[in-house]
Amino acid sequence: MSQLFFTPKIENGFAIFEEEEGRHLSTVLRKNTGDRLRLTDGKGYFYEAELADAGKRQVLARIISRQESPKSKHGRLHIAIAPTKNIDRLEWFLEKATEIGVDEITPILCQRSERDTIRLDRLEKILVAAMKQSLRAWLPQLHPLTKFTDFVKKTGETQKRLAWCGDEPMPHLKNTLLPEQDTLIAIGPEGDFSPEEVKLALSSGFQAISLGEARLRTETAGLYAVTVFGLLDVGLLDDGQ
Amino acid sequence: MSQLFFTPKIENGFAIFEEEEGRHLSTVLRKNTGDRLRLTDGKGYFYEAELADAGKRQVLARIISRQESPKSKHGRLHIAIAPTKNIDRLEWFLEKATEIGVDEITPILCQRSERDTIRLDRLEKILVAAMKQSLRAWLPQLHPLTKFTDFVKKTGETQKRLAWCGDEPMPHLKNTLLPEQDTLIAIGPEGDFSPEEVKLALSSGFQAISLGEARLRTETAGLYAVTVFGLLDVGLLDDGQ
Repeated sequence: MSQLFFTPKIENGFAIFEEEEGRHLSTVLRKNTGDRLRLTDGKGYFYEAELADAGKRQVLARIISRQESPKSKHGRLHIAIAPTKNIDRLEWFLEKATEIGVDEITPILCQRSERDTIRLDRLEKILVAAMKQSLRAWLPQLHPLTKFTDFVKKTGETQKRLAWCGDEPMPHLKNTLLPEQDTLIAIGPEGDFSPEEVKLALSSGFQAISLGEARLRTETAGLYAVTVFGLLDVGLLDDGQ
Repeated sequence: MSQLFFTPKIENGFAIFEEEEGRHLSTVLRKNTGDRLRLTDGKGYFYEAELADAGKRQVLARIISRQESPKSKHGRLHIAIAPTKNIDRLEWFLEKATEIGVDEITPILCQRSERDTIRLDRLEKILVAAMKQSLRAWLPQLHPLTKFTDFVKKTGETQKRLAWCGDEPMPHLKNTLLPEQDTLIAIGPEGDFSPEEVKLALSSGFQAISLGEARLRTETAGLYAVTVFGLLDVGLLDDGQ
């Protein structure tokens, strides 16, 4: 399977493609009635479908079969990350994190943030493109930009970790995570979290962790954390051995 | 320590900065005689130095002390990777791999490569910038573009892995690596390695491995492999616990 299409709209046995994806199918790829295609709803399912009607505005495909994508064995991963001054770096993180596997992303506004605006619609497109490209059936949930001090108070994950470049020695993320737990990992801005933010997070149940001895850029730290979390499974299942 | 400078030229107790790094120190930062600075030779050492002479062409700093950077506990990591059609993606990989930690990088020319030229001088600059930014004392060694079929025959690492998107089930990279071994991981182009290349690699001592169930872009696969290798240590040392 080399190409995967996406629509969240699956109704009465039909997949409904609108806007860009619809135009892409009809105008760019010139798909015709009867053509087979594979798609996902971004909610964990793949579908085999047959194109039933290709209009300019909307494309309809009749669902032939549905296949559940292998459930992730571990808990959900939620990454809270401060948007980078150079937005390309955040967009890069979103693409790569989607490829490697993340469930929720919350852009956070911190005291030392160098960017306080993001365009959710643009970022959403990057997530969709990365999901399709990596042939995944899960579209990460992207939340609006949230003030970190508000965010920490209303998080419900069982494992909450704070990637903080403090001076005292901290355990490596890898050694603080238990598998099959919903996990939240917070990554600060270029200038790191402020002492007040760290204090608040620690008092809100976050554990300060290290991502290794090197100083990682915000987006690198974010992807590093996503990769470490994903590897919990591999260790557990010892797959392929 | 927030800023790190770089020069490979350490002679008779002096660090000699030339070209860009020299101009940066003298013209941009306007450093003066007597100013303290921290630098690395890219070969595993940090130095404290005092600026002795800041000329337009060359800047001299008297070495005050030398400090060896913590040796990596595991073996050397060598990544062979096919340059991406969009060079930004390769450059991104070089920056991130340097941050996370890699010893050698060889751009490889494969049968299905979509790019057969790279500018080593430009790529070298990215490695230096990333080393300084991440406050590391090791500059990864960047080799010239090499034909993969020639490359596989002359590699001496004890662990050789091939990231190949074949159909049969393969062990996950993480479960095939032993710590403290010199390791080579080869990442193919967008169109993957050709059957001939896979056959040749396997007969040359490479083991085919998986990087997980998702389809990763070339540069994502490369960074994923670098991260997995680096985590071997963390597991071993169980640091911070």
